[in-house]
Amino acid sequence: MSGSFRKYIAECLGTFVLVLFGCGSAATAGGELGYLGIAFAFGLAIVAMAYVIGPISGCHINPAVSFAMLISRKLSGKDFAGYVISQVIGAIAGSALLYAIMDSTGKAVTSLGQNGFGEGYGIGISAFMAIVVEIVLTFVFIYTILGVTSSESNGRVAGLVIGLTLVFVHILGIGLTGTSVNPARSLGPAVLLGGDALSQVWVFLAAPLAGGALAAIAYRLLNANRAK
Amino acid sequence: MSGSFRKYIAECLGTFVLVLFGCGSAATAGGELGYLGIAFAFGLAIVAMAYVIGPISGCHINPAVSFAMLISRKLSGKDFAGYVISQVIGAIAGSALLYAIMDSTGKAVTSLGQNGFGEGYGIGISAFMAIVVEIVLTFVFIYTILGVTSSESNGRVAGLVIGLTLVFVHILGIGLTGTSVNPARSLGPAVLLGGDALSQVWVFLAAPLAGGALAAIAYRLLNANRAK
Amino acid sequence: MSGSFRKYIAECLGTFVLVLFGCGSAATAGGELGYLGIAFAFGLAIVAMAYVIGPISGCHINPAVSFAMLISRKLSGKDFAGYVISQVIGAIAGSALLYAIMDSTGKAVTSLGQNGFGEGYGIGISAFMAIVVEIVLTFVFIYTILGVTSSESNGRVAGLVIGLTLVFVHILGIGLTGTSVNPARSLGPAVLLGGDALSQVWVFLAAPLAGGALAAIAYRLLNANRAK
Amino acid sequence: MSGSFRKYIAECLGTFVLVLFGCGSAATAGGELGYLGIAFAFGLAIVAMAYVIGPISGCHINPAVSFAMLISRKLSGKDFAGYVISQVIGAIAGSALLYAIMDSTGKAVTSLGQNGFGEGYGIGISAFMAIVVEIVLTFVFIYTILGVTSSESNGRVAGLVIGLTLVFVHILGIGLTGTSVNPARSLGPAVLLGGDALSQVWVFLAAPLAGGALAAIAYRLLNANRAK
Repeated sequence: MSGSFRKYIAECLGTFVLVLFGCGSAATAGGELGYLGIAFAFGLAIVAMAYVIGPISGCHINPAVSFAMLISRKLSGKDFAGYVISQVIGAIAGSALLYAIMDSTGKAVTSLGQNGFGEGYGIGISAFMAIVVEIVLTFVFIYTILGVTSSESNGRVAGLVIGLTLVFVHILGIGLTGTSVNPARSLGPAVLLGGDALSQVWVFLAAPLAGGALAAIAYRLLNANRAK
Repeated sequence: MSGSFRKYIAECLGTFVLVLFGCGSAATAGGELGYLGIAFAFGLAIVAMAYVIGPISGCHINPAVSFAMLISRKLSGKDFAGYVISQVIGAIAGSALLYAIMDSTGKAVTSLGQNGFGEGYGIGISAFMAIVVEIVLTFVFIYTILGVTSSESNGRVAGLVIGLTLVFVHILGIGLTGTSVNPARSLGPAVLLGGDALSQVWVFLAAPLAGGALAAIAYRLLNANRAK
Repeated sequence: MSGSFRKYIAECLGTFVLVLFGCGSAATAGGELGYLGIAFAFGLAIVAMAYVIGPISGCHINPAVSFAMLISRKLSGKDFAGYVISQVIGAIAGSALLYAIMDSTGKAVTSLGQNGFGEGYGIGISAFMAIVVEIVLTFVFIYTILGVTSSESNGRVAGLVIGLTLVFVHILGIGLTGTSVNPARSLGPAVLLGGDALSQVWVFLAAPLAGGALAAIAYRLLNANRAK
Repeated sequence: MSGSFRKYIAECLGTFVLVLFGCGSAATAGGELGYLGIAFAFGLAIVAMAYVIGPISGCHINPAVSFAMLISRKLSGKDFAGYVISQVIGAIAGSALLYAIMDSTGKAVTSLGQNGFGEGYGIGISAFMAIVVEIVLTFVFIYTILGVTSSESNGRVAGLVIGLTLVFVHILGIGLTGTSVNPARSLGPAVLLGGDALSQVWVFLAAPLAGGALAAIAYRLLNANRAK
């Protein structure tokens, strides 16, 4: 298998796992788990994937992470395209399997762990605040990723730290926007469910990319040029 | 004590601990703990055992893991048989002690943390979907194990990562099938309880083995031949 | 960017994140999360920040930590002033953004995760006991920080340990005082909310500083002079 | 300060923290936290103490651990006595402070996180089963401690693993006996509360010591003589 193709397969598989387990926990057992349980589902999925597909592709499994890596010149334009396409396919496949699992119970499927905002979603924040929240959540997530992966010496714990960061980003964000910080993770449920999930999905495509770009810039200004 | 015998004792003890603590938490305090608490009971039992019996036997404590190791030629056929027999004995002993503990309260024992599917179990997914779910859950669990244990440099954190992987596999799976991913863990409660637990146990024997085999194949294709 | 200025920006950013995510989780989703979820929000925010701003400023993001470092002669008087001012600005900015997010729902904002004591707050402990509790909580938190950061060999896990320490300090403290252990974290909500939060804030300025000073002294007596 | 005296102070302080935070979480906020939250309070208290008093005294903060170390010839008879006395003083001091904190609310103090069994405690297991449970819980806890601390290479994560082991031992045990695994932790609340807590405390003195001794023996048979 060629190196590039293997990377794309890995990104597809990792995003599939993140969406199936993260969104799946929220959709099938959100009430039993509470926000903390859902947060751990997303965060620990990242921990696991970091240690098994990390050595292949870097385990972005998130277009906003790949975008920050492109800006930081750690990913080529060609690979950026390949990564994002693979992530979106993986996310839609994860949502589709989740749909099939829930559909087998004979009850109507009304939630696939989609993101949202406004009345009827979480505490009902405004569209503008949803954009601000997603930019901040993604900034914190990706700024931490850039920090913890920058030093060789963090190598062994980097996956744990990144996953635990995604946990606390979810703890705050679930009640606000459901926490996207990842355009692929939002697209999967939106494509399968349509409705509000689809009409609001632009927020969860644009804001995480903006947050990722800001994180890359902040990292360069604050952290990366310390040697100068 | 001979090396092989010590390994088998270790596998028996580890599986006993996994079943007593994991299934025991679900059976005696599932409502108090919620799905997240049960998930941590299973996952942290693996963490502990990894650091104490890992150096003896590799801490499989799961026939599906041993099967993946057999396929990956990291375990001999003779040891595979010895491991699986020891794991099954440990699991039944764990379930038996759990039964005795609960029986001492004077109330009828109706749950030992058994796996299941269909109406009346979790959200009520179909038998076919239970098979799919167990294959996917086991695939993710064992694919991660193969990844994190492949590199010497992960040595110190491998046990933590494997345990945390079992946590999130449970977070999603508890409401679907109860999460087996381990034929021994399912056999223990089934043998002691009979009924649905026993009549449905074939799913939890076959699907985890299939998931483990797929993980071994995927690992070889995606990860193991990177040097070529 | 000058080294000092970068440190102050880092402390400001880190305290902003701690307050927005920690206090924000309590204020927007406390009931959904329970005490354990709120505790993880605070603790894991520290974990993340430790690995990304730790290399810049040491990631105090807490005037009581900076005070203990000043006493231990690991921070200059000038930097102590710069750190504390930056932390307070970050905390107020975090509380202000939290206010704006909650205000966008159209409901009155009555909680920003403020600390407190007496009737109507937690289990209703006395002012004297609130002082004692905050001294003890801060002592344990900062004594652990001094221990885990003293040895180079803990480098990789220090951030994890410090964050998990803040988790258990919150598990006990949330029902008592809301857990300050950090004057900046208490000032932010108090300044924006006024009322009891502001009139009681002196406890959460004074007691954490006292606890931090005691931790620095205890560490010197018990741990630091082992070589003598 | 002499080396021995410093060790005893460290054991006293560590046990004080364990009892105040662990038992205190159960007594003041058990309902809010659930079993999982209480389990994390005990387990993460061990994590923190391991990294700060571990380098001084080994951070036993538990007579059953000290007993296992005595049997394994890693602790002298004189130090065993000094450790146990210090642990008991620390535990009683922790319970006393907890009593004072709760008393300041003006409500009667009926719980200090005491252990127990029989009707009216947890699920109501028998005295015999309480003994069995405590032996098994302590065996698992201390067998894991012996394993993870035996290898230099685990040094950095040993404290995390031991703490997480105490978490899952609590997840199962809280509903059965409240989880002692530590005679000092049980003595503290029993001495201050009297009643059932005191009349049943013999179980929680004897069974953990037996479990610790069995762990030391099992470790020697299964793990320690691998080189032979």
